[in-house]
Amino acid sequence: MNPTQWFTEKVPEAESAFSLKFKQKLHEEQSDYQFIEIYETEGFGNLMVIDGCTMLSTRDNFFYHEMMSHPVLYTHADPKRIWIIGGGDCGTLKEVLKHPSVEQAVQIDIDERVTRLSEIYFPELCESNHDPRAALKFIDGIKWVKEAKPNSVDIIIVDSTDPVGPAEGLFSEAFYRDCYNCLSENGMVVQQSESPLYHMKLISEMRKAMSAASFGHLQTLFFPQCLYPSGWWSTTIAGKVDLTHFREQDSANKSFDTAYYNVDIHKASLAQPEFFKKAFASK
Amino acid sequence: MNPTQWFTEKVPEAESAFSLKFKQKLHEEQSDYQFIEIYETEGFGNLMVIDGCTMLSTRDNFFYHEMMSHPVLYTHADPKRIWIIGGGDCGTLKEVLKHPSVEQAVQIDIDERVTRLSEIYFPELCESNHDPRAALKFIDGIKWVKEAKPNSVDIIIVDSTDPVGPAEGLFSEAFYRDCYNCLSENGMVVQQSESPLYHMKLISEMRKAMSAASFGHLQTLFFPQCLYPSGWWSTTIAGKVDLTHFREQDSANKSFDTAYYNVDIHKASLAQPEFFKKAFASK
Repeated sequence: MNPTQWFTEKVPEAESAFSLKFKQKLHEEQSDYQFIEIYETEGFGNLMVIDGCTMLSTRDNFFYHEMMSHPVLYTHADPKRIWIIGGGDCGTLKEVLKHPSVEQAVQIDIDERVTRLSEIYFPELCESNHDPRAALKFIDGIKWVKEAKPNSVDIIIVDSTDPVGPAEGLFSEAFYRDCYNCLSENGMVVQQSESPLYHMKLISEMRKAMSAASFGHLQTLFFPQCLYPSGWWSTTIAGKVDLTHFREQDSANKSFDTAYYNVDIHKASLAQPEFFKKAFASK
Repeated sequence: MNPTQWFTEKVPEAESAFSLKFKQKLHEEQSDYQFIEIYETEGFGNLMVIDGCTMLSTRDNFFYHEMMSHPVLYTHADPKRIWIIGGGDCGTLKEVLKHPSVEQAVQIDIDERVTRLSEIYFPELCESNHDPRAALKFIDGIKWVKEAKPNSVDIIIVDSTDPVGPAEGLFSEAFYRDCYNCLSENGMVVQQSESPLYHMKLISEMRKAMSAASFGHLQTLFFPQCLYPSGWWSTTIAGKVDLTHFREQDSANKSFDTAYYNVDIHKASLAQPEFFKKAFASK
């Protein structure tokens, strides 16, 4: 392959790599926090890359954004106040605001440049940025959560990069404890938990840290995500209350469009592969 | 990347590529039918490549082999006679023979070299090759099915390469009609149907061809498969009888080990993504 035509992300933990052919590099910049690149690819629309890792593409971001939003919102009995920590591309915000119960959705990403570039290169994800229920803050999400008052929020969605660089603190017991403290009594936090094929150690550590932070109920969900290492991804929900049931009827009657999510997919995402079940059998 | 250290499969239909770093190339040969390579990779164990396309790796073949076998076998009321068309690596055969109801499993792959190389480089997949219920034939599967008598077999598993080269005829209405004619009255055929993200056209054509060949019931199943294009794969079952229910209790009480499949995963694999549901809504 001619490397001048291909963007390649290497995945050291699997000694694998995923590449997309591009027509042109549309933009690159070093923000205050990270190195951001935007490519126009041949097959995946536009592609955002942060510090060398693929973040999202026009073609396949719907899996991730829908699965970060709809399962946890339909698991909560009455989600009104939502915070998105990270999520600067605004795709999660857009999905969250599809829920009529939501009264306030605050996106807190430390790097304003991610949002400004998303407005240019992924305008379809930013369609709801001016919804009167939406607020965009460009500050440190860890500090925001630490300083928040009890009962400030119903659901915290941690839509972050991998646990290196600015996002590292988002994968810690201290952060989950701060989440616990500002969530309402039946509150939930959901976080992307990487690949079940490559990152079982991370999933295990995340679950332990969430439990140690007093969350009594955990649920890991599985879904395809072509662009991310292994093509298979997960999110983990930590709840103060039982997560066994979700608002199935509401999900079945959802009033908005999706590309991947529906009530059957919600149930399916909860199915634990045999190796996963065995790994957590005694935990 | 130094191309001498990496095996790369390009996926023209998505302008993407997947690469695995390898320690060494263990073998290559031009058989009578195809070009076969075996690599020792850094992160995926051994890798078999046919005509430039990844076929299987030690690390992640379990998804594919389990999902080609267990769902269809648990959907059939009493599967005794199984044919595997293709499947020369013997991984599907091994999974099929885990079912106590199976009395006879015949693997029919045109290329004996695939099996001989699998015996050397994927010995764990060949563990059941000497099961008294197993038969390995190295002949043309299309001809075998065409010449078979009515009511010869309960399930036909088409475990083939992509629909180019020697496998092309396995994706045709004529082939499915021959399957129909030799299957027992509640018989089923299952075939790998590629990526739901990249190959909706192929899935659609396959389903049309299966219907045209008199199969009244179709079911497409979804599962992760890291090594294959997009990391997300599907199989499609065509049945003479209703496929809505499977032997859930038998699956829940299965007497054998798996790495991915279990009764919850079976149900989950049947969930249709929203875009898939819409595509086939009126068909």
